[in-house]
Amino acid sequence: MAEKIYAYQQLFDFTNQIFQHIGCSTAQAELATEVLLNADLRGIDSHGVARLSGYVRLWEAKRVNANPSIKIIHETPSTAVVDGDAGLGLVVAPFAMQVAIEKAKNVGTGWVSVQNSNHFGIAGYHAMMALQHDMIGMAMTNASPLVAPTFSTERLLGTNPICVAIPAGEEPAFVADLATTTAANGKLEILQRKNQEAPQGWIQDKNGHSSTNAHELKSGGALLPLGGDREHGSHKGYALGAIVDIFSAVLSGANYGPWVPPFPAYVPMPAEMPGKGIGHFFGAMRVDAFRPAGEFKQHMDKWIRRFRSAKTVEGEEKVLIPGDPEREMESARMKEGIPLLVAVEEDLKSLGQKFGITL
Amino acid sequence: MAEKIYAYQQLFDFTNQIFQHIGCSTAQAELATEVLLNADLRGIDSHGVARLSGYVRLWEAKRVNANPSIKIIHETPSTAVVDGDAGLGLVVAPFAMQVAIEKAKNVGTGWVSVQNSNHFGIAGYHAMMALQHDMIGMAMTNASPLVAPTFSTERLLGTNPICVAIPAGEEPAFVADLATTTAANGKLEILQRKNQEAPQGWIQDKNGHSSTNAHELKSGGALLPLGGDREHGSHKGYALGAIVDIFSAVLSGANYGPWVPPFPAYVPMPAEMPGKGIGHFFGAMRVDAFRPAGEFKQHMDKWIRRFRSAKTVEGEEKVLIPGDPEREMESARMKEGIPLLVAVEEDLKSLGQKFGITL
Repeated sequence: MAEKIYAYQQLFDFTNQIFQHIGCSTAQAELATEVLLNADLRGIDSHGVARLSGYVRLWEAKRVNANPSIKIIHETPSTAVVDGDAGLGLVVAPFAMQVAIEKAKNVGTGWVSVQNSNHFGIAGYHAMMALQHDMIGMAMTNASPLVAPTFSTERLLGTNPICVAIPAGEEPAFVADLATTTAANGKLEILQRKNQEAPQGWIQDKNGHSSTNAHELKSGGALLPLGGDREHGSHKGYALGAIVDIFSAVLSGANYGPWVPPFPAYVPMPAEMPGKGIGHFFGAMRVDAFRPAGEFKQHMDKWIRRFRSAKTVEGEEKVLIPGDPEREMESARMKEGIPLLVAVEEDLKSLGQKFGITL
Repeated sequence: MAEKIYAYQQLFDFTNQIFQHIGCSTAQAELATEVLLNADLRGIDSHGVARLSGYVRLWEAKRVNANPSIKIIHETPSTAVVDGDAGLGLVVAPFAMQVAIEKAKNVGTGWVSVQNSNHFGIAGYHAMMALQHDMIGMAMTNASPLVAPTFSTERLLGTNPICVAIPAGEEPAFVADLATTTAANGKLEILQRKNQEAPQGWIQDKNGHSSTNAHELKSGGALLPLGGDREHGSHKGYALGAIVDIFSAVLSGANYGPWVPPFPAYVPMPAEMPGKGIGHFFGAMRVDAFRPAGEFKQHMDKWIRRFRSAKTVEGEEKVLIPGDPEREMESARMKEGIPLLVAVEEDLKSLGQKFGITL
């Protein structure tokens, strides 16, 4: 697949102008751009600038409000529910995470469930906001239904990711950011573009039988929960995805399960939706609400060093700490630029032409 | 495998006397018995009365304090750290969960990390304590290292379970209680007793190669994180197990990773332990800290009914809601009794003889 390298700043300026063009304020356009491109920097290409025209189409379909009035609609000392006013999840999520952080400053932890939002980019960006405050950060979201629960042929859950970011001392932070499926949809999209087969355990066909056809979702197939099948624990992946759905949407008043609004603007909205928009859930826990931060970080360093230096299976270089690959990617791409597939580049150029903005 | 059925009350009386014999107070012996046998009732036989003589051996080895002074050693309005004083996890855990519940009453949520504890039975018992208060309950614990991180040959994590219990309205509660491995150790023990092979993806041999030998752990093998291998997402199971370890032990000051004290009393303790005992983590979130409880429960009922009535793969009876199988088992075993393997029955009888207590 042909690729072209773009400097981060060039993609930033372009994306920022697009968001301003659809009516975002200067501050919100910059924030949305930073969040969106963080996915590209960290190597999660499926959630970055490749989705920009998808966000714009949602705005064109009047499903995204470029000037939202995001607000807290219910709260206690350690919790809040935020109404995103149909704004870009890229700006609603940092708002809600900041509320969680402020609550954690006051009472030790903060927990925020969000209704009436849209796709928020990568969970990692939001969870990692907690790190600079010596807090553990958590972020999760529900998403368009693509995943079948164990034993079902129906797509009732999204890939519903969970991110947990934990500060360390001299070592970089522990950042686990994972879809609750065997493989994220982005990985499947890569196979689709390359016309390659998927491994067993990633997807099923419309009858619920295991399939290796990477295009199976177009004919009624589904992604499989982490575990793949019952014998390998898919009921656990299903349960984790369900927990994300419930925390994000049943707690907040957003849509859940098969009623989550689809990301592609051309897919019709489900009938009789039980809530508003899509839902997210955020958490922040002050480390020193449990033990002195310095002490905690020393032990995190010890934990990380012990695991990173563990004996490896022959042929494997080292044991990774969650967050290692994304951090290394971010550092490399900030210097060397971000590769875009030609298809993505063309999509961005045609978006730019429509609005008179040059990539 | 030959089995004999025992009435719940008979096992309760026996276990209660054993705990009293080793020096537990009347109240603590009853609580420990109730928690331990809840595993048998819910069909998690590996964590129930089959472990009773193991707990007694830990007491004989002076690793369990039958009369602990369990106390809060640090707290904020929404958090606490509890020192279990080397007590039975079976009594330390309910104490800590109650602290989480009280904090949630006051400020919306409560989060408690525990040091200096022992094996706490099943996570489900503790998380479900929240349900009667219209709260979401969470419980997790670290455990003896049996699990190899992705790419490693070393056993650095326990099966580190997570339970999340969520109240519903007319429907029974959603209760997901899952080890962060492909298969819980108890399932492997069943295969060992039957001399059957394990499925691919459950275990690896001492060199880190996939194995189907259910006895592999005796020769340096390891359980695999949920996902099984890298291609099927084992790095996600590893990350989840790591999060449980860090929340339970690095936050509280307990031992973590390979330093977690082993459950079998004959296994020597690790050298240079960085903390005290094993660690747990508990959470309670008041539903009405987010939205009115009645409204939340109506939507949970809708969620549960939609998933339970989902179309099934041919040959499968229905889509399960997490907690369904355990609840049905509990109801059946409370009426019909609890089957014990002959080996377990003999072990209990010999324990009883030693103390002059009749099964």
